[in-house]
Amino acid sequence: MAIPEVSKKEKQLNVESLALGDLTWVNIEPPTERETEYLAQNYPFHPLDLEGCLSRVQRPKIDLYKDYLFLVFHFPVFNKEARVTTSSQLSVFIGEKYLITLHKGELKPLVKLFRECQIDEESRQENLSQGPGYILYRIIDRLVDYCLPILNRIVDNIEEVEDDIFSDRKKGTVKEISMLRRDIISFRRIIWPMRAVIGSLEPRIRRFTKMDLAVYFGDTVDHVDKIWDALDEYKEVIEGLNDTHDSLATNRTNEVMRMLTVIATILLPITVVASLYGMNIPLPFQQSAYSLPFVFLIIAVIIGGMLYFFHRKRLI
Amino acid sequence: MAIPEVSKKEKQLNVESLALGDLTWVNIEPPTERETEYLAQNYPFHPLDLEGCLSRVQRPKIDLYKDYLFLVFHFPVFNKEARVTTSSQLSVFIGEKYLITLHKGELKPLVKLFRECQIDEESRQENLSQGPGYILYRIIDRLVDYCLPILNRIVDNIEEVEDDIFSDRKKGTVKEISMLRRDIISFRRIIWPMRAVIGSLEPRIRRFTKMDLAVYFGDTVDHVDKIWDALDEYKEVIEGLNDTHDSLATNRTNEVMRMLTVIATILLPITVVASLYGMNIPLPFQQSAYSLPFVFLIIAVIIGGMLYFFHRKRLI
Amino acid sequence: MAIPEVSKKEKQLNVESLALGDLTWVNIEPPTERETEYLAQNYPFHPLDLEGCLSRVQRPKIDLYKDYLFLVFHFPVFNKEARVTTSSQLSVFIGEKYLITLHKGELKPLVKLFRECQIDEESRQENLSQGPGYILYRIIDRLVDYCLPILNRIVDNIEEVEDDIFSDRKKGTVKEISMLRRDIISFRRIIWPMRAVIGSLEPRIRRFTKMDLAVYFGDTVDHVDKIWDALDEYKEVIEGLNDTHDSLATNRTNEVMRMLTVIATILLPITVVASLYGMNIPLPFQQSAYSLPFVFLIIAVIIGGMLYFFHRKRLI
Amino acid sequence: MAIPEVSKKEKQLNVESLALGDLTWVNIEPPTERETEYLAQNYPFHPLDLEGCLSRVQRPKIDLYKDYLFLVFHFPVFNKEARVTTSSQLSVFIGEKYLITLHKGELKPLVKLFRECQIDEESRQENLSQGPGYILYRIIDRLVDYCLPILNRIVDNIEEVEDDIFSDRKKGTVKEISMLRRDIISFRRIIWPMRAVIGSLEPRIRRFTKMDLAVYFGDTVDHVDKIWDALDEYKEVIEGLNDTHDSLATNRTNEVMRMLTVIATILLPITVVASLYGMNIPLPFQQSAYSLPFVFLIIAVIIGGMLYFFHRKRLI
Amino acid sequence: MAIPEVSKKEKQLNVESLALGDLTWVNIEPPTERETEYLAQNYPFHPLDLEGCLSRVQRPKIDLYKDYLFLVFHFPVFNKEARVTTSSQLSVFIGEKYLITLHKGELKPLVKLFRECQIDEESRQENLSQGPGYILYRIIDRLVDYCLPILNRIVDNIEEVEDDIFSDRKKGTVKEISMLRRDIISFRRIIWPMRAVIGSLEPRIRRFTKMDLAVYFGDTVDHVDKIWDALDEYKEVIEGLNDTHDSLATNRTNEVMRMLTVIATILLPITVVASLYGMNIPLPFQQSAYSLPFVFLIIAVIIGGMLYFFHRKRLI
Repeated sequence: MAIPEVSKKEKQLNVESLALGDLTWVNIEPPTERETEYLAQNYPFHPLDLEGCLSRVQRPKIDLYKDYLFLVFHFPVFNKEARVTTSSQLSVFIGEKYLITLHKGELKPLVKLFRECQIDEESRQENLSQGPGYILYRIIDRLVDYCLPILNRIVDNIEEVEDDIFSDRKKGTVKEISMLRRDIISFRRIIWPMRAVIGSLEPRIRRFTKMDLAVYFGDTVDHVDKIWDALDEYKEVIEGLNDTHDSLATNRTNEVMRMLTVIATILLPITVVASLYGMNIPLPFQQSAYSLPFVFLIIAVIIGGMLYFFHRKRLI
Repeated sequence: MAIPEVSKKEKQLNVESLALGDLTWVNIEPPTERETEYLAQNYPFHPLDLEGCLSRVQRPKIDLYKDYLFLVFHFPVFNKEARVTTSSQLSVFIGEKYLITLHKGELKPLVKLFRECQIDEESRQENLSQGPGYILYRIIDRLVDYCLPILNRIVDNIEEVEDDIFSDRKKGTVKEISMLRRDIISFRRIIWPMRAVIGSLEPRIRRFTKMDLAVYFGDTVDHVDKIWDALDEYKEVIEGLNDTHDSLATNRTNEVMRMLTVIATILLPITVVASLYGMNIPLPFQQSAYSLPFVFLIIAVIIGGMLYFFHRKRLI
Repeated sequence: MAIPEVSKKEKQLNVESLALGDLTWVNIEPPTERETEYLAQNYPFHPLDLEGCLSRVQRPKIDLYKDYLFLVFHFPVFNKEARVTTSSQLSVFIGEKYLITLHKGELKPLVKLFRECQIDEESRQENLSQGPGYILYRIIDRLVDYCLPILNRIVDNIEEVEDDIFSDRKKGTVKEISMLRRDIISFRRIIWPMRAVIGSLEPRIRRFTKMDLAVYFGDTVDHVDKIWDALDEYKEVIEGLNDTHDSLATNRTNEVMRMLTVIATILLPITVVASLYGMNIPLPFQQSAYSLPFVFLIIAVIIGGMLYFFHRKRLI
Repeated sequence: MAIPEVSKKEKQLNVESLALGDLTWVNIEPPTERETEYLAQNYPFHPLDLEGCLSRVQRPKIDLYKDYLFLVFHFPVFNKEARVTTSSQLSVFIGEKYLITLHKGELKPLVKLFRECQIDEESRQENLSQGPGYILYRIIDRLVDYCLPILNRIVDNIEEVEDDIFSDRKKGTVKEISMLRRDIISFRRIIWPMRAVIGSLEPRIRRFTKMDLAVYFGDTVDHVDKIWDALDEYKEVIEGLNDTHDSLATNRTNEVMRMLTVIATILLPITVVASLYGMNIPLPFQQSAYSLPFVFLIIAVIIGGMLYFFHRKRLI
Repeated sequence: MAIPEVSKKEKQLNVESLALGDLTWVNIEPPTERETEYLAQNYPFHPLDLEGCLSRVQRPKIDLYKDYLFLVFHFPVFNKEARVTTSSQLSVFIGEKYLITLHKGELKPLVKLFRECQIDEESRQENLSQGPGYILYRIIDRLVDYCLPILNRIVDNIEEVEDDIFSDRKKGTVKEISMLRRDIISFRRIIWPMRAVIGSLEPRIRRFTKMDLAVYFGDTVDHVDKIWDALDEYKEVIEGLNDTHDSLATNRTNEVMRMLTVIATILLPITVVASLYGMNIPLPFQQSAYSLPFVFLIIAVIIGGMLYFFHRKRLI
């Protein structure tokens, strides 16, 4: 199969390409129906795959064909404004003499790698000289490493939440825990299917590369597994922190309740005795000079008795 | 085996049929005992299968026979009035020259597809020319895609609930969470057994189709897996939101409790001192011109002391 | 091996038997040590199996021997008085020319089937003519179907509980949830090991039957799986309802707390001001004709200020 | 390999032995370094195994060697004083002509079995005549059956806790639930690894026995599985009971809160109105003969209005 | 391959070495880029592995090469100051004639073993004479045993927390539970991947050792499994304790609430009646000598009635 000329027409399309020897790397950013039509005309791709490049309901997968592989990856991208981790799709067609990447431009490391190869002759040589399989490894490796800062941000947030929980009664802690939890859940959902795809990738792209990539992909799989392990741990940690927050809140309710009981125990008896002596009826000791000390004595006896009783019952 | 004539008698039964070449698609909507009896007379189907078309306790499954396959699917259908997702059964008999679908008419995409093939010659050509296996693929693909709007509705509801939880103390949030949770649970239960059945369908219906459907069914399986992944995520999210709601409610209880403590701390001492000075006994400073300022001074000292004490204990 | 004569001696034992051709169905209800001794004398059964028929610590299982199979099943039985689902053991010996069932008489469908075959010649012909494997299928199928009403009762109870939770503050809801949960747990524990046994039964009893029972047992396995799926769903639903109940209770606590705060906010200031004006000391405006309106004005200002403050803090 | 003479020296060691024909059962109770040294001198055992007999960090396991097997079992033992289930280690060396058991004497059924064989000729004949594999089966079978009373005690405790939760506000219920839960957790941890070991034991000791023990060990494995199933169920039940306890406690808090609100609703308005009429300022109706009925009327109107308002809001 | 001379240059690097016969053990503590460069020059190691020795995102793993193995282990290290368990990486290159260990010096048993072999001729003989595989076993065995004191510390902490929960209302219990839980989670995450690596290690290093290490590694795997089982149990126990703490806190809230209700029930009626008799209006019995007993009678009747009513409603 001959690799088609893409010089002029590409200008109008979101299609850019790089070539070294007989190997071409075509980057489509972002793909629309016009681009997939262009691919349909120039490459022997299955219509369902071209549809899949545009669809929102894809899952990471490897589709094997006689002449090419169709790969779908989802990588996490952190949206700084909305403060959530979302997934960004990377579709790849890999053939003997071409690698076609389709994405929305949110995957910075991929954009940067393509730029480097465009500008820098040496970088192009380094990445493209080993066949399309090696470029794919370079892309995936960079995108997997790109997950680490997102992961570190989660660790930082967890530690911050932990401090908030114990040190202070900050207002937004519950919201922070909830958002962090949701973020971890959605991150996990992105990594989960990726593990299987990257894990089974190496033997399938072996035919598209000149060097043995087993060690390289093994290393990448280890990184993905490490990320997965970390997310698993963070999930357990954040669930634990949620429980801890609730336990502390319950404890605080208890503290406040006990304080209210103490206030009631001390102040109500005074009011009661004072009200009794405020009645407009004849009362004992009413006119005596010792009436006030007498009243305070009664009050003190009642308060003392109640405090002693509650203390013995371990309620305050 | 000859395909039986179904022209007249069908009129009285809930049976409609389409034919192209020697292939017939029989649609029974809804099936009753009369229709299964009719099938028993005209096709070599196992009595247990015919029973299964009417039964309510079926599970998605593939039964293999020498001449035909019997398939049971359950697809989710959203009941707008009751606001719950229920399952609707689709039973399929697939033979070399026929496809028989039995359902209650709730599966709109199937009803629509059958109508299209009835009315539109081109559509009939497109769907029926590749053998009964291809029609089956078309039906399943449409029904799986039909799950997506139901899924999107769940996402919308989750986001609404999330906003409700944090922004306002809306009354019905707990009920909303509970219904959403139940809906997700029941949706999951419908998708779960479907994955296995659709996943193992392609090699078994290979003999009933002219084209290679592996890629097509692979795509459908991906969609089902995507739905499953999404439901898994939503389940975790809604459980997290439930926890968040409870944590916020506990926090609010704490806030209100602290406020009550503050009120008690400020108002009770005033009442106490006022009651004491309301006693009908001789009291110090009683007739002095400075008695009122003196009372207010005592009150201010008590309140100040209590606020200081509680603040140091971090209770208010 | 000759089938022993069981006519006279059986009269004294809890042993009844049916015969058709050279096939005998022996029903022992309930089994005691005397009956297992009788079996030991007449059949080549392993002593551990005979012990197992009487033991309470059996698990559903299939024991394979050269001449016979020993099967243990546990089926759920609903105890209406105690309102719990318990398991009832059915032990079966199946040989080439005999089927021996041992149970306590709680499994109504089995008792009924045996009666039918005793009384009705036609029924006996239908059930016994296909060999002991077919009778076994008939028994198991009926007993599995017998689970459905128990399952439906659980669904009804769940719906009732759901209504109770949201509509009213009924007293017994927590107890109802707890009992339902326990019932589902114990039902699940009965079904769980049954799945494996019934699923692997067909190939092992093939030698004891004249017809191919694969489809029949496949259907029964589907029913058991359906029951399992349903119980799994109910378990999740009831756990969700428990959470919902707690969330609603927490909400109600909040409502009541806020109401108490409102009461305190409105009534306490009145008491405070009134107490101050009840003091037996010279007070401003005391003898003025406008003293009462003045007092009410102070009260109104205090209440208004507090309500405004709390409302801004979103506490009431 | 010759079986060593153990007559004299054993006296000083914690070693006892039984012999029948060329088979010896050596019982070491409790094992110390002196006993393992003795074994090291007389038997070809691996040093790690001898260490393992004394170590506290063993796990149930089967170690296969050319001449012998080394087995470690952990059986549950109920400590009546501390009211917890702990594990007690049984180490076994089994060779062609010997069985060596090492334990701390806490496993009563094993101690009893050894005593029986010492005293009673018949019992020794019964247990030792079938080779070391059969003695091992006898020991394990008795020790597994010994778990049942511990299990029954747990069931009794669960039922007691269940009654406590619903019938009364007993003080120690939470502690009881907590201890029961911990007991079940630790019991499960003992049974869990035991299942795998006993399940894979029979084929490995086949060479050390004269009779076919497959059925016997199969029966024992069933018992262990039954115990595991039961513990699984109890774990779910006790977790459910914990939730139920908390729900009931939350409900009770609600009840008490509502009662406080009712008290406040009824008593505070009286105090308020009374305080107002206690003010030392000119008040309307003050000197009228109908002032008291008038005051009560105002109070009744306020209380009635509040009760009606709260009732409509479904708060009381 | 010849083992390189490492005498002089090592002095400046963090590299130490031991030799016995043609076997060299090189210990690098801590590794930096200079040390990995040194290894790259002298050994045929893959660049990715050398990178992995310095990286923080490694996972325990075994990488197989023709001439050597690259192993990564993570062992738990308890940080006494921060009171948390963290993981410390040990990277190992094992070849026919060398063993290279790279670590940060936090793994005390490894540091100690290397020192012993440096100083003590006998110890060097014992550890190095059996080939590099045996040294590796010695290192791993000591490091695994080093986990046990960390585990015991967790057990001690759990028991302390358990006592705190039941005996007293200590302030820091929630924090203690939270930290313990997090510690167990992170310990588990360290042990989890280690199990797989150590479990599959023996057959892979067989070629690097003179003696059969299967029994030895089997023993080590048992220890790791035992640690895992223990951590699993502790995780369940600490979750149970968290629930117990919350249940107890809820109970205490109930107790305090009931106490407040009792106080309100006893004191408020007195205040109410006293306020009524404090009104400046004509009251019945006002001037009677029996007015005070009459007032107390009314109060007693009201309090008695309320206590009786609440007691019947089981609220106090």
